[in-house]
Amino acid sequence: MVRWQPGTSERLQAAALDLFASRGYEQTTAAEIAQSVGLTERTFFRHFSDKREVLFHGQEQLTEAFVGGVAAAPADATPMELVGVALDTAAELFPDERRSHSRLRQSVIGQNPALQERERHKMSVLASAMSDALRARGVAEPAATLAGQSAAMVFGVAFGQWLRDDEERSLADIQRELLAALRGLTGASPTG
Amino acid sequence: MVRWQPGTSERLQAAALDLFASRGYEQTTAAEIAQSVGLTERTFFRHFSDKREVLFHGQEQLTEAFVGGVAAAPADATPMELVGVALDTAAELFPDERRSHSRLRQSVIGQNPALQERERHKMSVLASAMSDALRARGVAEPAATLAGQSAAMVFGVAFGQWLRDDEERSLADIQRELLAALRGLTGASPTG
Repeated sequence: MVRWQPGTSERLQAAALDLFASRGYEQTTAAEIAQSVGLTERTFFRHFSDKREVLFHGQEQLTEAFVGGVAAAPADATPMELVGVALDTAAELFPDERRSHSRLRQSVIGQNPALQERERHKMSVLASAMSDALRARGVAEPAATLAGQSAAMVFGVAFGQWLRDDEERSLADIQRELLAALRGLTGASPTG
Repeated sequence: MVRWQPGTSERLQAAALDLFASRGYEQTTAAEIAQSVGLTERTFFRHFSDKREVLFHGQEQLTEAFVGGVAAAPADATPMELVGVALDTAAELFPDERRSHSRLRQSVIGQNPALQERERHKMSVLASAMSDALRARGVAEPAATLAGQSAAMVFGVAFGQWLRDDEERSLADIQRELLAALRGLTGASPTG
C-alpha cells in the first residue's frame, strides 16, 4: 500500500531547491533530496520521474491556468483580451509569497544549459497550447498563432522582471504593463 | 598548407542534408558526409566543428542580417518599423530557390528533439541580438525587449509557413502580412 502524505511533494521540492542552490544541480541526487527530509529515494520517485521534474512540476498547472483563462473569458472578448484574461489567471499561481522560491529556482536554472533548454521547451509548449485554446474559441489564423506566442512572450518577459531583486510589483501588474506596452508598440502611432 | 576551395562548405552541406534525410541524422557520420563528395573527414572538420553545425551554419549570417537591418533603417523609424526593415533584410537570405533546401533541412530537424532544441536556442539568441540592436538605436525598455522578441516570433512563424508544401508566397511577403496581422491584433479595434 502506497501512503501519499499531503505536502510531501512540496517538502521534496523545497529540499531539492535548497540542495540544488547550495551544492549544485548536477551534484545532487534524488536519494539525497529524499534523505534531507527523512524520506526514501522510492518515495521521491513516487512523486517525480527524475530530479529535473522537481523544477518543472508546475508546467501542467501553468498551461491549464492559461487555457482555462481563455475558456472562461467573456464571449465577445477580442483575441488580445483573451490573452489578457489568460495572463491574469496564470498570475494567480505566483503570489508574492512565492517570489523567493521562484528566484531560487531561476538561479538554479540559470546555471545549467540543459535546464534552460527545458525552460525554453516549456514556453514553446505553452505558446502552442494557448494558440490551440484561441482556435477553439474561434480565433482565425494567423491571429491565433501570433496571439498564443505573444501570450507566452509577455509571460516570459514579465516573469523575468518579477524575479529581479529590485522588483516589487506583482506579476499580474507587470504583465498588464507589458501587454499595454506591446499594444502601444505595435499600434500605428510612432513610439521611437 | 590548407587549401580552402570555394564552394566546399556548400557541397558538404548539400551532401549532409541528403544523407541526413535518406539515412537519418543519427546514422550519418562526418566521415561519410565528406566521402560522399570525395573529401576527407579532416576537410569536413576544417569547415564545421561537428555534423550538427552543418545544419546551423547560417545562424551568424541570419543574426547579422537582422542587426544590420536595424542599423541601416532611417533615423526616424519607430521600433516596429525597425523590426520590419530587419525582417526584410533577413528575408533576402532565403530566396525562393532556397526553399527546397530549407524544407529538407526542416524535415531533418523535425525528427530530432536535440536539433529542435538547437533551433529554439537559435531563435532565443536572435531575439536577444535584436533587442540589443534596438537598444543601441535608442529604443527604451520594455519596448526593445518586446520588439526584439516580436521580430523573432514573426520570423519563426513566417519561416514555418514559407516551408509548407502548398505555400508559394515569398518569405518577405509572408513576414509583412504577419507583421500587419500582429499590428491589427494588438491594436485597439476588436478582431474577434
